[in-house]
Amino acid sequence: MPALQRGAAYASRERTIGRLRLGSLVKAVLIASILTSVLGAMLFTLPDLSETQKQWLRYALATNLAIFSIEYAVRFWLAPEINPEGQAQPWQARLAYARSFLGLLDLLVILPIFFWLLIPHESGIYNFVGLLALFKSAHYAQSMQLFITVFRNERKPLMSYLVVLLVLLVLFATAAYVVEHDAQPNTFRSIPHSMWWAIVTMSTVGYGDIMPITPLGKLVGGLTMILGIALFAVPAGIVTNGFAAELKRREFVVTWRTVANVPLFKTLDAIRIADIAQLLKAQVVPARQVVVRRGEMADAMFFIMSGEVEVDVPPEPIRLGEGQYFGEIALLKESPRTATVLTVEECTLLSLDARDFRRLMERHPDLKLAIERVAEARLHTHADGTPVTG
Amino acid sequence: MPALQRGAAYASRERTIGRLRLGSLVKAVLIASILTSVLGAMLFTLPDLSETQKQWLRYALATNLAIFSIEYAVRFWLAPEINPEGQAQPWQARLAYARSFLGLLDLLVILPIFFWLLIPHESGIYNFVGLLALFKSAHYAQSMQLFITVFRNERKPLMSYLVVLLVLLVLFATAAYVVEHDAQPNTFRSIPHSMWWAIVTMSTVGYGDIMPITPLGKLVGGLTMILGIALFAVPAGIVTNGFAAELKRREFVVTWRTVANVPLFKTLDAIRIADIAQLLKAQVVPARQVVVRRGEMADAMFFIMSGEVEVDVPPEPIRLGEGQYFGEIALLKESPRTATVLTVEECTLLSLDARDFRRLMERHPDLKLAIERVAEARLHTHADGTPVTG
Amino acid sequence: MPALQRGAAYASRERTIGRLRLGSLVKAVLIASILTSVLGAMLFTLPDLSETQKQWLRYALATNLAIFSIEYAVRFWLAPEINPEGQAQPWQARLAYARSFLGLLDLLVILPIFFWLLIPHESGIYNFVGLLALFKSAHYAQSMQLFITVFRNERKPLMSYLVVLLVLLVLFATAAYVVEHDAQPNTFRSIPHSMWWAIVTMSTVGYGDIMPITPLGKLVGGLTMILGIALFAVPAGIVTNGFAAELKRREFVVTWRTVANVPLFKTLDAIRIADIAQLLKAQVVPARQVVVRRGEMADAMFFIMSGEVEVDVPPEPIRLGEGQYFGEIALLKESPRTATVLTVEECTLLSLDARDFRRLMERHPDLKLAIERVAEARLHTHADGTPVTG
Amino acid sequence: MPALQRGAAYASRERTIGRLRLGSLVKAVLIASILTSVLGAMLFTLPDLSETQKQWLRYALATNLAIFSIEYAVRFWLAPEINPEGQAQPWQARLAYARSFLGLLDLLVILPIFFWLLIPHESGIYNFVGLLALFKSAHYAQSMQLFITVFRNERKPLMSYLVVLLVLLVLFATAAYVVEHDAQPNTFRSIPHSMWWAIVTMSTVGYGDIMPITPLGKLVGGLTMILGIALFAVPAGIVTNGFAAELKRREFVVTWRTVANVPLFKTLDAIRIADIAQLLKAQVVPARQVVVRRGEMADAMFFIMSGEVEVDVPPEPIRLGEGQYFGEIALLKESPRTATVLTVEECTLLSLDARDFRRLMERHPDLKLAIERVAEARLHTHADGTPVTG
Repeated sequence: MPALQRGAAYASRERTIGRLRLGSLVKAVLIASILTSVLGAMLFTLPDLSETQKQWLRYALATNLAIFSIEYAVRFWLAPEINPEGQAQPWQARLAYARSFLGLLDLLVILPIFFWLLIPHESGIYNFVGLLALFKSAHYAQSMQLFITVFRNERKPLMSYLVVLLVLLVLFATAAYVVEHDAQPNTFRSIPHSMWWAIVTMSTVGYGDIMPITPLGKLVGGLTMILGIALFAVPAGIVTNGFAAELKRREFVVTWRTVANVPLFKTLDAIRIADIAQLLKAQVVPARQVVVRRGEMADAMFFIMSGEVEVDVPPEPIRLGEGQYFGEIALLKESPRTATVLTVEECTLLSLDARDFRRLMERHPDLKLAIERVAEARLHTHADGTPVTG
Repeated sequence: MPALQRGAAYASRERTIGRLRLGSLVKAVLIASILTSVLGAMLFTLPDLSETQKQWLRYALATNLAIFSIEYAVRFWLAPEINPEGQAQPWQARLAYARSFLGLLDLLVILPIFFWLLIPHESGIYNFVGLLALFKSAHYAQSMQLFITVFRNERKPLMSYLVVLLVLLVLFATAAYVVEHDAQPNTFRSIPHSMWWAIVTMSTVGYGDIMPITPLGKLVGGLTMILGIALFAVPAGIVTNGFAAELKRREFVVTWRTVANVPLFKTLDAIRIADIAQLLKAQVVPARQVVVRRGEMADAMFFIMSGEVEVDVPPEPIRLGEGQYFGEIALLKESPRTATVLTVEECTLLSLDARDFRRLMERHPDLKLAIERVAEARLHTHADGTPVTG
Repeated sequence: MPALQRGAAYASRERTIGRLRLGSLVKAVLIASILTSVLGAMLFTLPDLSETQKQWLRYALATNLAIFSIEYAVRFWLAPEINPEGQAQPWQARLAYARSFLGLLDLLVILPIFFWLLIPHESGIYNFVGLLALFKSAHYAQSMQLFITVFRNERKPLMSYLVVLLVLLVLFATAAYVVEHDAQPNTFRSIPHSMWWAIVTMSTVGYGDIMPITPLGKLVGGLTMILGIALFAVPAGIVTNGFAAELKRREFVVTWRTVANVPLFKTLDAIRIADIAQLLKAQVVPARQVVVRRGEMADAMFFIMSGEVEVDVPPEPIRLGEGQYFGEIALLKESPRTATVLTVEECTLLSLDARDFRRLMERHPDLKLAIERVAEARLHTHADGTPVTG
Repeated sequence: MPALQRGAAYASRERTIGRLRLGSLVKAVLIASILTSVLGAMLFTLPDLSETQKQWLRYALATNLAIFSIEYAVRFWLAPEINPEGQAQPWQARLAYARSFLGLLDLLVILPIFFWLLIPHESGIYNFVGLLALFKSAHYAQSMQLFITVFRNERKPLMSYLVVLLVLLVLFATAAYVVEHDAQPNTFRSIPHSMWWAIVTMSTVGYGDIMPITPLGKLVGGLTMILGIALFAVPAGIVTNGFAAELKRREFVVTWRTVANVPLFKTLDAIRIADIAQLLKAQVVPARQVVVRRGEMADAMFFIMSGEVEVDVPPEPIRLGEGQYFGEIALLKESPRTATVLTVEECTLLSLDARDFRRLMERHPDLKLAIERVAEARLHTHADGTPVTG
């Protein structure tokens, strides 16, 4: 990493910390707004609410809607800064936000005010617009994408499971109806009534409003319950394996992306990157361990998958984090390490063996040229010619 | 892939798309028929149904049965086209359908009409024939086979689990009977009555019609519930691991089948195919990535496991999908790639290294001969001598 | 496999089939006896049983006890044949059965008769001795050992889980007591009463006899329920991973045992066998596939892990099953295969590469000697000198 | 292992056994104290307790608090012996205990007595101080750390899941309120009341105090229940995969630590140790098997991951357990094994191949030097010059 880049990283780091503090506060306010909006709308339905209490709830709602309106304006205006990728013009970025899924949800939440501002009138329905704030929770469930992917990947077995579930429900409901109808003509009145019993039993909810009383009916009920246990096992099996497969796939894609983002490899095609990704060995290194030591021979370069390392270069050590790499220049120059690198916390590193690195270059002359060009450029940025993360 | 084959693929593709549109409509109608049939039969049991409503349900049933009859006739008549494999004569294919499991289910659903047409008479039971349509849902639960396989593979541990469950039920029911009988002689009347309590409790349904009231009885109940939690874990564990094992096995068989279907490898015996299948490396390539580039040296051939790739050959790019392969001719001729191949969506490719490919040929002279013969045949089909998927 | 051994295998096979038919009948009778014994004892507790019905139940019980007594006598007498391993004297085998866990359970079930025969008297307790037959179910839950092993392996995390569960129960019970005691002094009377509510809620049984009614109480209840969901996830996670680890370990031990049982490797020490076990590659081969073909060069030997293969040797093909192996003599003699081997059903084979086989021999001269001695012995058994399984 | 060290191991072993016996008794007393403390505090809330019974509970509480005070004093005083690592001065170790999490919990439990001793007065609250003993259970749930780690690692998906759960609860509660409010204005009084129904239903508790009665309401209820089943699958999937990932990571770290603790490798940096850790092959060896035999050529050294082995050296065999290693000196001296090593129970061994061992030394001259120095030191400790663990 050249010095210039290093300086930039520092500055960005500091700004990030400043932002984080402000960001945490803003985030807390917004989450509180969402929670009080939804809670307020729910409390509004309480039948024994005094007029004063209702007025307070209306004030709270108005405050929250104001906050959401400001949030929308800020998100709209700062769209080019928040999400700078791929948009040439600021207005394009703003339009992109306004038309995005999250942007539309944000708009939906504040839309009722504009209606009311345009045509002010009294209607009970306005007391419940706070419920819409529920949709804003999509901003704060980042890992939700993992669930959605797993459920989309496994939609076929899950749908099949649902079909099986429905068929079993109808079968057991019919059986219970046939067996119990004469004994309890009022509760097991019809198959639809019996269906209610079947779903309440199979899902193991068991309200107790409707249940078999004849010995035969209890036998049917017992079988329904045992099947209910088996029924819990099937989606658990599907979802658990879906998670495992998706996580494995993501791990590969992460490796692929890490390699694809190394300047050296940017010009390579997909398969060659996948090839390199497979040469990498994952290593979990505990905290405060030496990874490379100044003066030692270089036998590998490293990509950081998670965690942070410290490179002790003068004037003061710098830190490298997820997605960054080190040790490549010493490998190219076939020189000893010029710095010691320690792990700050437990790190997952991907190492590319010197041998594999060289074999790769021999096999692909175009890659070798690219490497030499990049190395040349890097060393020129350094006035003193010393590779930093060597 | 020779030009002729390519043309055929196109034509088949267009026909498929046309069919898919019609097919989706037909499928929707059939699913609606099944749902309304079953729902109608269930609604018929409602005690407070007016005669007019009953008449409407009968009309709906008649319509659905007509649809099912037409479906049966069409499936029977088009059997040779729907499932062309392995049947020399059209009538053999039709008979095969009529005698298949799904065919028999289809027949079962419409059988009551024929009875009624032969001997027209009034009977309440005819109102419920719609319930039989439930069996037709087997057509629409394609992934169900996976469940069946997993449950069949794991039938031994699952049966053992059932035995343990039953033994525990009897033990806890006896304990609860002994402890609670004196306090509640009417609810815990006998061990069979206590069994009902045990299954209702262990399956965590908990209707609330029968439960312990003495301190000792509540202790027995609490233990039963804690065991109930453990009981959910066991089938979940069995089924989850069963899914994982079956999916792994399927993955291998799919690879094996893919390799076995390559013309080159058709003459090999099972073990050699398994050997080759193990030489293949799976690679997940994101969408819109270059896999091979025109003019580059060929270092591997590829089998498509999932996803689609685009080969940009003149006059217009062609697409290859699951089970197809590319890049083998350039490997055989040791010439540069003659076309660029891009992924259309995320693909899983299996690559066979040029080195492994050649080692294979050296070891098995018969394989080498077969390869040269196939390559010769392929190049002759091409009038211009240019390998398409290079 | 020499001819003699082949003949023995045939004879044993035929006897096995004959036994299986008789065995299935005997097994069915015994299972029926167990079920009717337990059911009978349970029915005896029904309060509205007529004297005639009671008499019938007593007759059934007497019959079942007679059957169990005969079973015990037969198992005792035939102990040397049923379990011939490791016992020099028939009486030692019989004593071993009598002192085994299953033997003691079998005795326990019939013990009450002997008491009654010694001191005939009338007692109500005798009506319930049928319940003891429950213990005999241990004979029919062969996979149960897997559960026991998994639960024993995971006993530490499961116990920790139980401790956490109990601590949470006490905490939530105390919270609910504090919150609800004033509103419902009769149901939430004390912390022990509240504990009953906590376990009924956390296990998601929910009888409905005791539940919070104040808003704060419902909040405590809601948290208890959400924790209840999380509580189901933990044992599921422990048990699922326990199953996976145990199955993986068993797979290794099976491979190890298979290798250790090959005559060739019997003299090796544990580590060397483990070494060889790691050289083996598992291959799943679909049904009706050629594994080795007569006349081809031998490049591996095979151990059958599951499934059956057919070796087409004159006069008629023989079958080899789980734990057997083939292809080793051709490997030793460096001659072409003398027979074709097909899979009868889907098989899992472990193949040992010719190269690894030879490297092994070079490294260990003692192993080489042993191999040559075994091969010599095998070829001498064959009068015609042709190795059977090629 | 030199003779001196061997002797020390013996002495330590004997002392350990003696301590274990005393330890088990002490542990049992302490667990009983915790249980009776908590139980006593819970029983105190029973409304129909006589004054005598209360007095007994107070005596029991006093006894338990005395035991806990003694325990605290002993733990405090023996802190240097119990946890000797890293503390130069006994008082430092004592202070470390007093300030540790467990130490503070131990103090918290006995704190009320000191208050009472300082200012003796009568207060009902003192009857419940036994409940604090609950916190001492943290001492006896050692595997709990695994849960905590898994839940901390998976906190992001679990939090997302909680957000989704809450959003679904609000949505279904609102739907049920809209649908059922008119039919049951008293039970579905408001959305907060409906929320109670939603959580009781979705967690499958189902008390039966509040449930839909209209057909539409039952449809909403049915969907809620089916979602409830799906909801159980998600945390099960997250936690199961979290356990698997954590166990895999731990396994690696354990291997890493084992290698890092070999004197030979102590000077190496983290990455080199990780390299060696990856060269090790895990082998499960059944009980009573020979691992290395006296007089054989040495081809590997072994690290014990789990289980115990017996080395038959004169005058009597010694045992090595988890974390120890054997077979390294014969490898260094390139001499035959001087002792036979057997497994006592099933062991997991990690073997480092002689070839990998030597390659390592060639590549790193500094490592070679270190090895020779260590070997020299070891052989000097032996007066007779015979390496013990061969």
